[in-house]
Amino acid sequence: MNQARLNNLTASMRTSNLDAVILNPGPTLTYLAGVEFHLMERPIVLFVAPGKDPVLVLPELELPKVDLFPYKIQAFAYGELPSEWDDAFRKAAQSLGLDGKRIGVEPRQLRLMEFGHVKAGAPEAEYPDASEVLSGLRLKKDKAEIDAMRRAVKIAQDSLEATIPLIKIGMTERELSSELVMQLLKHGSDSALPFFPIISGGPNGANPHASPTERKLQAGDLLVVDWGAAYEGYISDLTRTFAVGEVDDECAKIHKIVQEANAAGRAAGKPGVPCAAVDIATRDVIEKSGYGKYFTHRTGHGIGMEGHEEPYMRGDNMQLLEVGMAYTVEPGIYLPNRNGVRIEDNIVITEGGADCLSDMPREIRVVG
Amino acid sequence: MNQARLNNLTASMRTSNLDAVILNPGPTLTYLAGVEFHLMERPIVLFVAPGKDPVLVLPELELPKVDLFPYKIQAFAYGELPSEWDDAFRKAAQSLGLDGKRIGVEPRQLRLMEFGHVKAGAPEAEYPDASEVLSGLRLKKDKAEIDAMRRAVKIAQDSLEATIPLIKIGMTERELSSELVMQLLKHGSDSALPFFPIISGGPNGANPHASPTERKLQAGDLLVVDWGAAYEGYISDLTRTFAVGEVDDECAKIHKIVQEANAAGRAAGKPGVPCAAVDIATRDVIEKSGYGKYFTHRTGHGIGMEGHEEPYMRGDNMQLLEVGMAYTVEPGIYLPNRNGVRIEDNIVITEGGADCLSDMPREIRVVG
Repeated sequence: MNQARLNNLTASMRTSNLDAVILNPGPTLTYLAGVEFHLMERPIVLFVAPGKDPVLVLPELELPKVDLFPYKIQAFAYGELPSEWDDAFRKAAQSLGLDGKRIGVEPRQLRLMEFGHVKAGAPEAEYPDASEVLSGLRLKKDKAEIDAMRRAVKIAQDSLEATIPLIKIGMTERELSSELVMQLLKHGSDSALPFFPIISGGPNGANPHASPTERKLQAGDLLVVDWGAAYEGYISDLTRTFAVGEVDDECAKIHKIVQEANAAGRAAGKPGVPCAAVDIATRDVIEKSGYGKYFTHRTGHGIGMEGHEEPYMRGDNMQLLEVGMAYTVEPGIYLPNRNGVRIEDNIVITEGGADCLSDMPREIRVVG
Repeated sequence: MNQARLNNLTASMRTSNLDAVILNPGPTLTYLAGVEFHLMERPIVLFVAPGKDPVLVLPELELPKVDLFPYKIQAFAYGELPSEWDDAFRKAAQSLGLDGKRIGVEPRQLRLMEFGHVKAGAPEAEYPDASEVLSGLRLKKDKAEIDAMRRAVKIAQDSLEATIPLIKIGMTERELSSELVMQLLKHGSDSALPFFPIISGGPNGANPHASPTERKLQAGDLLVVDWGAAYEGYISDLTRTFAVGEVDDECAKIHKIVQEANAAGRAAGKPGVPCAAVDIATRDVIEKSGYGKYFTHRTGHGIGMEGHEEPYMRGDNMQLLEVGMAYTVEPGIYLPNRNGVRIEDNIVITEGGADCLSDMPREIRVVG
């Protein structure tokens, strides 16, 4: 499997006129190698060049992982003295004859630290942005990947269902977040969760990227729960919004509007339709309701090994949906200093349209 | 507190001849701002320039966090269209008059992505490495920071003690890792754990950076448990090595040697002594025992908001220890394809020498 992925990469490098690409620890490296490395202060870089064995620069203490690669690689290991690291990178670049060539980089992942070492090893090379080639690799999910995502959705849903009866007025957002994390692990999530649950009640819910606080749940709050699980490295990313006790009419109203927007977004995806159409579908519902200016973010993002990846469901994204693409649909309405609502599902494009992996009830439910 | 930290930074920027530094989401930004941002596909950068209000470039949907800053900042927010992002960076750089100036970067943290946007906004600037200035900021911990680390150590120790009775022969590394994570959360760790526990038995323990696998614990294994908790953003990072049932004489022997090396390392730190002395102290014990070539990594690393930070306990590091510096002492012996031992504690330098925050028994204990 990893060999086929590597072949796909080198084929698309050829059409993009790249002599190599470099990858540091992160999802693209894991996808290609099937081996996980830590992103840390010691640089680790995989060089992939068409027609040659990939080359890995790594610390000596990571050498046991070289045997786990599913194809032959050449390793250049360095010791604990940073003054010797550039030398390993120089040898790696020389072994592939890369100086003066075009070495593609992944700007969202590569740090100046690794980049500096690679440049020291190949100072005359050019370093074009290879994001398109690299994100293209992981864009269409195969059956095994979709199965893992489906499992990650089930683990997440079961975990939240197990948590709901424990939600009480007076509980803090942090307590609820910890409880949900424990349920995720009990239900079989990878212990490397994709992200820590966002639990935000009342005014905190009006901040789409809030971190859980010591604020206690109060009757009348809308409660946004944005959570996910991971299964064999593939993730889910869902949101449901609850009513803590009885909520006022406007809260009930915006919840209903977001539910409709979410349904419109889920229905909009199919092969050949641009990503923008999914965004427009949800936004139309919210704009017609008069709350357009309170829907402050795009409708969704790609999902797979990462929480946020390509393709993005954004009004300007004319990229066409294809079978196997997976993404979130997550419209929201955020009333500053008052309340917020978001409802998020995970979608995979199929021959016939779009398959929604998540099916937990979206209607407003009372908790607490 | 954050204002004082900011003043420290601008003072040391002046002596380093830096006109500004730029920070993306990560521990240095959190340390200075007291506000946490996600590292994601949308760039977030704080510009700090002496004598001026800091400037933050961020997505509109993160704007609610601007009010959480403990000092006045100027924010340039951008919308969801990436084509408009460079413009926000240009305005930010112009507001500080930075083009053509010296803008310090943090290569271990800054990605090419954020760097590219900043460069688009200030194409004529120089971008020197500001690692020393930035890591210097967080190098000496104050009382509140040490108290938080002490609490993170206690949470970690209590969590492992609660987990030990649950360890059984036949349990997989992954199961044990999940159980320990649950205990960490139950005992009050921040839900953003510093790292996921490394649980490695038998031959897997010979890889210092192993990830938990489906391998089942077997009688005769040494079991390496490398784990930590976080408390208010400060972390602990400990290791203990257990015997699963009865282990052979060599396992018992290398465990005892590592215990002695750990004790020597803990005793070696005090103000005015170079970091190298701590490394030499542990390495001497292991080399004299004849296992020197199986101790394949440095003795330790700094600890605080990050799992690995300055100062590094490495044989070539002549940096002098000072009151408030905090680090790990973690010697190990790794016998390839057989077993590994590591024993790790967390140390803080005090006026009188070194305070070891962790006190869980280091002697070999039988589990399973």
